[in-house]
Amino acid sequence: MEKILENLRIEKMAMSFLQAPYKLNRIHEADAELIDLGKEYDKYLALTTDAVVEEVANGLYDDPYLIGWMLVMSNFSDLAAVGAEPLGILISISYPSTQDEASLSKLAQGVSDACQELKTFVLGGDTNEGKELLFSGCAVGLVPKKSVITRMGAQPKDRLFLSGPAGLGSVFAFLKMYNQDFPSLDRLYQPIARIEEGKIIREYASCCMDTSDGVIHTVDTLMRLNRCRFILYDDWNRLLHPLAWQLCHMENLSPWLALAAVHGEFELCFTIRPQNEKEFLGEAKRIGWNPILIGEINDGLGVSIKSSKGFVPMDTGLIRNISASAGSDPHVYLKKLTEIALKAAI
Amino acid sequence: MEKILENLRIEKMAMSFLQAPYKLNRIHEADAELIDLGKEYDKYLALTTDAVVEEVANGLYDDPYLIGWMLVMSNFSDLAAVGAEPLGILISISYPSTQDEASLSKLAQGVSDACQELKTFVLGGDTNEGKELLFSGCAVGLVPKKSVITRMGAQPKDRLFLSGPAGLGSVFAFLKMYNQDFPSLDRLYQPIARIEEGKIIREYASCCMDTSDGVIHTVDTLMRLNRCRFILYDDWNRLLHPLAWQLCHMENLSPWLALAAVHGEFELCFTIRPQNEKEFLGEAKRIGWNPILIGEINDGLGVSIKSSKGFVPMDTGLIRNISASAGSDPHVYLKKLTEIALKAAI
Repeated sequence: MEKILENLRIEKMAMSFLQAPYKLNRIHEADAELIDLGKEYDKYLALTTDAVVEEVANGLYDDPYLIGWMLVMSNFSDLAAVGAEPLGILISISYPSTQDEASLSKLAQGVSDACQELKTFVLGGDTNEGKELLFSGCAVGLVPKKSVITRMGAQPKDRLFLSGPAGLGSVFAFLKMYNQDFPSLDRLYQPIARIEEGKIIREYASCCMDTSDGVIHTVDTLMRLNRCRFILYDDWNRLLHPLAWQLCHMENLSPWLALAAVHGEFELCFTIRPQNEKEFLGEAKRIGWNPILIGEINDGLGVSIKSSKGFVPMDTGLIRNISASAGSDPHVYLKKLTEIALKAAI
Repeated sequence: MEKILENLRIEKMAMSFLQAPYKLNRIHEADAELIDLGKEYDKYLALTTDAVVEEVANGLYDDPYLIGWMLVMSNFSDLAAVGAEPLGILISISYPSTQDEASLSKLAQGVSDACQELKTFVLGGDTNEGKELLFSGCAVGLVPKKSVITRMGAQPKDRLFLSGPAGLGSVFAFLKMYNQDFPSLDRLYQPIARIEEGKIIREYASCCMDTSDGVIHTVDTLMRLNRCRFILYDDWNRLLHPLAWQLCHMENLSPWLALAAVHGEFELCFTIRPQNEKEFLGEAKRIGWNPILIGEINDGLGVSIKSSKGFVPMDTGLIRNISASAGSDPHVYLKKLTEIALKAAI
C-alpha cells in the first residue's frame, strides 16, 4: 500500500522521542493521547494539541470569530473521538503588534462561545508577538478507563457509521474559493465537537476517529491501522449533507469528492459490531441523535465503494498524498482530485 | 502603582472567558494552571503552555537544538514552580515547506535531550505548514494537593531565595547581540527546569515563581500579588552568576541590569518563613543544592535594593513596561534600561 507522506513527516519528527510507559496509545492509534494517572484513578487523562494555521494562511478562515470557534472545536473533536469529557483548553497565540483590537476581541469571542457551547473552559494561555497570526490549542479531558475508545479495534462484519452527514467542510471550502457571495457563508460552517455523541459511542463502538480531515482521510487511516477492507455505500443523498449533494450535482462533480476534501466536517466516524447495533441505535435515539450508516467492514484490505456496478476500489492513499503534494493550496488540490475522479469514473 | 502593559493585554484577551470551577488558581496567580480532578484523587493536574516565538524572531535563539531544548525547559520550568512532577509535553510546530531536514532533526534532538534530562516524554503533537517557524508546547504534570505551591502566600519577614545564581539569561542575550564570537556561546546557556528543587520548595516555601522573564519581572509580580515590600540585597558577586558579574564589570553596567533582562535564567524564586529556613536548607543540602538568599520581605509595598547607603527604591513597573514598549528588539530594550540605571544611580 502507498505510504502516507504526512505520516512519514510526523514519524520522522517523532523518531527520536521515547514512548511514555504510562501512555496507552502509540503514534496514530488515537485522536487524543491517553495517559494513565495511576491505579487509584479510574479515568484516563486525554490530551491533544491542534493549531489553526493552514486554514488561515490559505484564506479558508478569514473571520476571526470562526478562527476562534474552530480552534476550540478542532481540539475538542479529538477528545470526543476517544470518548472523553472536556476539562478545558489552553491557548497559545502569536500575532503581529499591528493586529487590530477588534479582530482580537472577535477571536476571543469565538473561543468563548465555542467553550460555552461545549460547557467547558479556557484554562490558561500564552501570548506572543509574531509576524503572522498563529493560534494553537491544547485540550484536556477525562475518559473512564473501562470505556475508552481509540482508532484500533475494527473487525470484519462491523458496521461503519458517521455521527452526522458528510461534506459540509468541503462545501464551505468550495464556496469560499469559488463563490464568496453565497448567502450566509460564514454561518454555514460552524461545527460542534460531538462530545455527547462520543459518550454513547465509547460504550458501543469498536473504533472511532473524527473527520477533521474529511471522510476519505479518516476511513483510509482506520483501514491502515485495523488492516480490514472498508466499504462505503454509494447512496450519496443519504450520506451527504444536502448542500454537498446539491453542490456536486450543480457543479457536475462526483459525489465522493465531497468526502475527499481535507477540510472536514468534524463528525465522528466509528465502527459497531453487528450484535451491538440495535442497542446503540436505541441509545442514540434517546438523545435525539441519528447516526448515519455509511458502510461496512469486510475481510481484506483497502477502501472500496459499493455501487450497483459492484465494488469500485478507491486509491485513498493516492488521494491523501495529493493534499501533501499540493501543499496548502486548495485550488491545486481540487484540480488534482478532479483528474483522479475522471480517471476512476466512480 | 504603575499598571503592567503585558498583563493588561492578557487580561483583555481573557476577559470574556469564564473561570472553570475546578481550577484552583486565578489568572496570574500561579506559573501553571492547577486543576482539581475530584475528591477521589489526591493530586492536582498542572498544565501550562509556552511558545518560543520572540526569541527566534529577534535572533536570540538561532540554533535549532537550543530552540528545541528551550521549548521543553520553559514549559517544565512552569511546572517546577508549582511543585509538579512532569507527565510530559505536547508539541505544536509550524514551519515553512522550505525548512531544511537537518535543522528539523536538530530541533527534535533538542526536544528529545531536554525531555531525557528531566526523565520525561513527548506525549504527542501537531505539525503544520506556516510562513515562519513556530513552536509551542503544553506541559502536563501532577502535584500532591497537600503541598501545591503558587505565587500567592508571601508575608513580611519571609526570606527571599533563588534556586541558583541570577543573570545567565541576560549574559547570553548580551553576548548574542554584541559578541557573537564569544567562545562556546551556544553551550553557555542551556537551562534545566528545576523539577527536583521544586519538590523540596513545595514542602517549605510560602510562594514560588520561575525567572523565565528575569528576576526583576518575577519579584515585581510576586510583590504585586502578595502586596508586600520586596527587598533585594546588593552583594552582587554572591547573587549573580560569575559571568554576569564579570560582564557588568567589564562593560561598566550596573549589576542590577543583569536582573532586568526579560530573558531569564529559569531559576525558581521563592519565599520561606524564617522558622522553616533551617530545615529547608538542610533538605536542600541533602540533594547537593545550594539555594541563594537574595533578599527579604517587609511590610509595605514596592521593590527596593538594600545597600550600604540604605534602601534604594526601584521602579520595577517602569522597567517591566519598557520591555512591552520596546517590542521584541533587545537593543532598544537595553538602551532604555541603561538610561534608567544612570538616572536611578543604583
